[in-house]
Amino acid sequence: MASEEPQDNGQKLDLGRFEVRTDLAREAHDMAVEQRRDGSAIPGVQMDEQKENGITTSWIRIEDRQGAEELGKEPGIYLTLEVPDLRSQDSRLQKRVSNHFADQFQQFLAEVGIGLNDSVLIVGLGNRNVTADALGPFVVKDLMVTRHLFQLMPEQVETGYRPVSAVAPGVMGLTGMETSEIIFGIVEKTQPDAVIAIDALASRALNRVNTTIQVADNGINPGSGVGNNRKGINRETLGIPVIAVGIPTVVDAATIAYDTVDFVLAHLNRQMTQTAPTNPLDPLDRASVKELRAQNVSPEASEKFLGIVGTLNSQEKRSLINEVLNPLGQNLIVTPKEVDSFIGDMAKVVADGLNCALHEAVTPENVSTHSS
Amino acid sequence: MASEEPQDNGQKLDLGRFEVRTDLAREAHDMAVEQRRDGSAIPGVQMDEQKENGITTSWIRIEDRQGAEELGKEPGIYLTLEVPDLRSQDSRLQKRVSNHFADQFQQFLAEVGIGLNDSVLIVGLGNRNVTADALGPFVVKDLMVTRHLFQLMPEQVETGYRPVSAVAPGVMGLTGMETSEIIFGIVEKTQPDAVIAIDALASRALNRVNTTIQVADNGINPGSGVGNNRKGINRETLGIPVIAVGIPTVVDAATIAYDTVDFVLAHLNRQMTQTAPTNPLDPLDRASVKELRAQNVSPEASEKFLGIVGTLNSQEKRSLINEVLNPLGQNLIVTPKEVDSFIGDMAKVVADGLNCALHEAVTPENVSTHSS
Amino acid sequence: MASEEPQDNGQKLDLGRFEVRTDLAREAHDMAVEQRRDGSAIPGVQMDEQKENGITTSWIRIEDRQGAEELGKEPGIYLTLEVPDLRSQDSRLQKRVSNHFADQFQQFLAEVGIGLNDSVLIVGLGNRNVTADALGPFVVKDLMVTRHLFQLMPEQVETGYRPVSAVAPGVMGLTGMETSEIIFGIVEKTQPDAVIAIDALASRALNRVNTTIQVADNGINPGSGVGNNRKGINRETLGIPVIAVGIPTVVDAATIAYDTVDFVLAHLNRQMTQTAPTNPLDPLDRASVKELRAQNVSPEASEKFLGIVGTLNSQEKRSLINEVLNPLGQNLIVTPKEVDSFIGDMAKVVADGLNCALHEAVTPENVSTHSS
Amino acid sequence: MASEEPQDNGQKLDLGRFEVRTDLAREAHDMAVEQRRDGSAIPGVQMDEQKENGITTSWIRIEDRQGAEELGKEPGIYLTLEVPDLRSQDSRLQKRVSNHFADQFQQFLAEVGIGLNDSVLIVGLGNRNVTADALGPFVVKDLMVTRHLFQLMPEQVETGYRPVSAVAPGVMGLTGMETSEIIFGIVEKTQPDAVIAIDALASRALNRVNTTIQVADNGINPGSGVGNNRKGINRETLGIPVIAVGIPTVVDAATIAYDTVDFVLAHLNRQMTQTAPTNPLDPLDRASVKELRAQNVSPEASEKFLGIVGTLNSQEKRSLINEVLNPLGQNLIVTPKEVDSFIGDMAKVVADGLNCALHEAVTPENVSTHSS
Repeated sequence: MASEEPQDNGQKLDLGRFEVRTDLAREAHDMAVEQRRDGSAIPGVQMDEQKENGITTSWIRIEDRQGAEELGKEPGIYLTLEVPDLRSQDSRLQKRVSNHFADQFQQFLAEVGIGLNDSVLIVGLGNRNVTADALGPFVVKDLMVTRHLFQLMPEQVETGYRPVSAVAPGVMGLTGMETSEIIFGIVEKTQPDAVIAIDALASRALNRVNTTIQVADNGINPGSGVGNNRKGINRETLGIPVIAVGIPTVVDAATIAYDTVDFVLAHLNRQMTQTAPTNPLDPLDRASVKELRAQNVSPEASEKFLGIVGTLNSQEKRSLINEVLNPLGQNLIVTPKEVDSFIGDMAKVVADGLNCALHEAVTPENVSTHSS
Repeated sequence: MASEEPQDNGQKLDLGRFEVRTDLAREAHDMAVEQRRDGSAIPGVQMDEQKENGITTSWIRIEDRQGAEELGKEPGIYLTLEVPDLRSQDSRLQKRVSNHFADQFQQFLAEVGIGLNDSVLIVGLGNRNVTADALGPFVVKDLMVTRHLFQLMPEQVETGYRPVSAVAPGVMGLTGMETSEIIFGIVEKTQPDAVIAIDALASRALNRVNTTIQVADNGINPGSGVGNNRKGINRETLGIPVIAVGIPTVVDAATIAYDTVDFVLAHLNRQMTQTAPTNPLDPLDRASVKELRAQNVSPEASEKFLGIVGTLNSQEKRSLINEVLNPLGQNLIVTPKEVDSFIGDMAKVVADGLNCALHEAVTPENVSTHSS
Repeated sequence: MASEEPQDNGQKLDLGRFEVRTDLAREAHDMAVEQRRDGSAIPGVQMDEQKENGITTSWIRIEDRQGAEELGKEPGIYLTLEVPDLRSQDSRLQKRVSNHFADQFQQFLAEVGIGLNDSVLIVGLGNRNVTADALGPFVVKDLMVTRHLFQLMPEQVETGYRPVSAVAPGVMGLTGMETSEIIFGIVEKTQPDAVIAIDALASRALNRVNTTIQVADNGINPGSGVGNNRKGINRETLGIPVIAVGIPTVVDAATIAYDTVDFVLAHLNRQMTQTAPTNPLDPLDRASVKELRAQNVSPEASEKFLGIVGTLNSQEKRSLINEVLNPLGQNLIVTPKEVDSFIGDMAKVVADGLNCALHEAVTPENVSTHSS
Repeated sequence: MASEEPQDNGQKLDLGRFEVRTDLAREAHDMAVEQRRDGSAIPGVQMDEQKENGITTSWIRIEDRQGAEELGKEPGIYLTLEVPDLRSQDSRLQKRVSNHFADQFQQFLAEVGIGLNDSVLIVGLGNRNVTADALGPFVVKDLMVTRHLFQLMPEQVETGYRPVSAVAPGVMGLTGMETSEIIFGIVEKTQPDAVIAIDALASRALNRVNTTIQVADNGINPGSGVGNNRKGINRETLGIPVIAVGIPTVVDAATIAYDTVDFVLAHLNRQMTQTAPTNPLDPLDRASVKELRAQNVSPEASEKFLGIVGTLNSQEKRSLINEVLNPLGQNLIVTPKEVDSFIGDMAKVVADGLNCALHEAVTPENVSTHSS
């Protein structure tokens, strides 16, 4: 989350920042498809999805401005892993996800044009003292860094490794500096061929928290406050590829409430119209989840089930909920109470995956002996 | 929270346990008064409230079975401090709350009949590895324990201290033992005159999380599962007074959603009927908060605003929300993302307060030099 | 170390306590053999040693009073693993040691008469806030506890598990209670068939710190102060077998100095008398290490190399060093600066080993998926 | 300690680094004076010492090359606080030291020419995962940073504050980058007027560990390996003043042994020659401590007391001890076992002191409400 606000406590600012970064490309894509109602593909957007062993892997390529506008996301490549069971703390599943992430990430590097021996700087964004925001620093702690060996004793570095450096720069509230100032300075002095930035994200949906990993090739844009002139950390500003790896770890209370109203409406509609899916609901079965979305409910049914509230559109409903919750001090950003182990587990999944993907000599079998 | 379930991950069981222990006496009292609509006092219940310097202090005495039934709480004395600004991480306010808590807790000890020199065992319930559940262990860490000095070198103990011992027994998922088994064993061997148990609670309202402290004289009742034959930790089972100090630290997603629907309904009603309170809303102003409760909304208005959902009673609405969220994996127990600092701050408030309240020689001025 | 002193800071008391518990049986045995000079076996003591893959495993059985007196150790069975490279943070070696420890510990359980289905309470002694003393609490955190499952849902427990419970009771300075009071209380209430106590030890030799694991069947004797009437935690006091697992984690500065003087003397003697062993010195090669011991040096050589100091016997040399260091505040208890990772690694080795040894269904292959 | 070695475990390299940086100016000065035997002042060196309330404060100014050579330290200003009781964990003393440090540091800033409103970047060197090396990162965590407020909302910053930024860059083993590369990059981008670097040091004497604070104006020189071309972090390389704040937190085992031999020799000499000081020894009384130094012992006495070892000079004795300990794996870097609380306490002393010294509006009375 890489809090870039002057005041870490500023709920308001936090929300502002989160709103901008809330949407995962995968969510944006599904919503855009639903909007179309006719199920037709979105021009300028390629989408490829595979489901295996409880992991849904999707590659979304937003190829032009039209696609970008319809999705509300920048053009670029988005890789998303969705693993609903990842919160069950099953270490075998975590290992499987880690390996799969390594494979997919390696493909991603190739697509983005990062070579096998290109040097990489990994930036762990976020605040290590706020566990829900500590994914980046935790990942950095477990990375296998090698750049100094290439610098100081190149002849002794075995083949199968590339130069990797890593830093957890901290958040502005603790450093007094914009994260981008620190990163720009370090990149200038150490000249990596690419940057990988790890960050905790805010999600629109509680069920995405700690179950989804998104990889994107268009960098990081910390902060979105009024009059914000902060430079993003991306290929334009740094001159080298910047890959962002993000995992949703928090959700705001208003979103929980909004989504529930949405779900309730769709649920009632489904019951009334006898279109119930084959039970039990499979959270990975998009067909059934889609039925739970309110978009499919007719305006008449919506009003019947939810009265005046049912006549509001999405934006109006969200505004109403914020209007009600904010003055009561109820609109907090929340995280599952198991945040300590969830973040620890996800950091290990990502760190092991990166170690395998970046160094040919590191494999799923020996990765645990490599992480420091 | 002192998780007593075989499986710490068991969302279901957790919820079960939390439902039983969710209500603070203060909340139960306010709801009972609202139910009465005529604002009349509840027979068998004494309620005394003071508001000063941003701290609302209330003493509720449930004196007989009738009062107990109407409130749904056991007979006993309940002291509640409510400090809406406590989450603002203002260390001066924390110090003031700590001192006020010490004063009130001293009165509480006197009321319950615990003498100035009576020995006390303080039990920090909860799981230190789950920050949201670690209030008890964190408090224990900062307590000033003295019993061993009285045992080993009584002549060297200065006046103004009493024998205090402390233990953080851990949770059943980590110990394999019921917390009560551990406490019963320790009490039998060390023979304290009273027990004080510290625990994190689940709240019905997000705005209570880390802003409310409840002290009660009727012990702790960990777990409420089916066929649960666990003994409570209370005066009946231990033969000595057992005081419970609880702070809400978590809330379940369904409650957030339910409350929001409730607030939205009351908000719309208020807007339509022009009964808006003097703005801005003061979260400590119960008159204005009460207006936000749905109970005051007429059935007709309720249906108008919320359609079929508006015709459901409280229990039906809760069931509907649980029915919708559970299969989607959305119904998590959540905590504010700032949980690390919130719990740390509250633990210090309680520990400093207990140190001052239990030892005459410890004062707000010197307390920070006493905690270990 | 399970500090049982009223004052955790009391260097003096600490030292007193450590002196009593300093000696590992293996060290005591080697010194006794050296004393004999003729290399003859010690009556009443059986010693069996195996060296494999960098791990030296020894079983010492002190069978009667004569043996006990010559070694200065209680009668009983002592299993010792010595792994000089364990500090190198090689995770593959750690895994191997963990597996070997599991095998040996299983044999130890059988020797002591603890059956495959006997229930076990594991006690993690020490202070979790002092990393060098936190081995016990850290091990407890990673144990696989099952007793509550046997109690609450016995029909659902798969075969291959036994009832295991665990507790980290804390130290007297933090609880105000003697550790034995807490353990006696818990044992009485939960009735385990055996107790396993984990503790950090003080060592006489810096090279033993975090490289040696000792298992003994005669319990734990916390504290040894003047007028100490504390009950030990052992078969006599509890009525069930008590196994102690100890790892040296600290050493006092005077011991470092004393040993160095000793080594210097032997080193000079060796150089002068041309009895140098085949280089390089192998720390696992007792023959060569023995040569470095001062005991083999003639009184004349000793005086030649070290002057008046060389004429002092062991006890006199120790006294002199303590006499010099104590008033200078130089005689601290120290630990390697890498204490954080050393203790973490050793705790994992022991926890994984215990999980495998206690539950038939847990194997080296699946152990990492079992620890919580 | 800011480990700059490729391998954090590399004992050898560590020692190399520590040897260079071991000596505190205060130690170097005392040794140089002792060397002179006649007690005469050292040309080119000014030394001013005050002792009050258990705190010895000394200012040493090395003004030219001659003084620098005689002391073996770079020309510059060295401020040293020595507080033998600081390890007693007395929070009142800590507060007093913190306040005194603030006063002295303010003078130091003035001497070095850093103005009241000059912006400052504080660099916390060291490895936060190795507690003995985590002083820098721990201090950074408690600093009051303000630069971002000056940048983003200058009109809202109250008077009495200056722009302060802070960063804990990590160690080369974890980042793959030289610390100086990171600092140079950040300084270039954020343009502070001065840098303050906080670091844990190695000491020659166990009694200095966590009792001494040194402030110097000639920067930091991380690493000293063979062929080391690392740039120091100092006024020459950065173009702005660089102040180093160092606290000894570790000592190597050979030094403990060497010092003990030294002390034993002086102790015996003192006893034999009846020059015992008035007992008890006061560790702050340099006259008495000096008597304990071996330098005063005549060669004849030295040989009498320590035989052949007594005939060796300092360097030969050190070599002998290293020669003996290294092959035995005994020569570890060690730290007091209470390292967790010692480092935590010292970090608070330094952070509170810096907050008071850098911001006029922060005073000893309100400092605890300012640190984050």
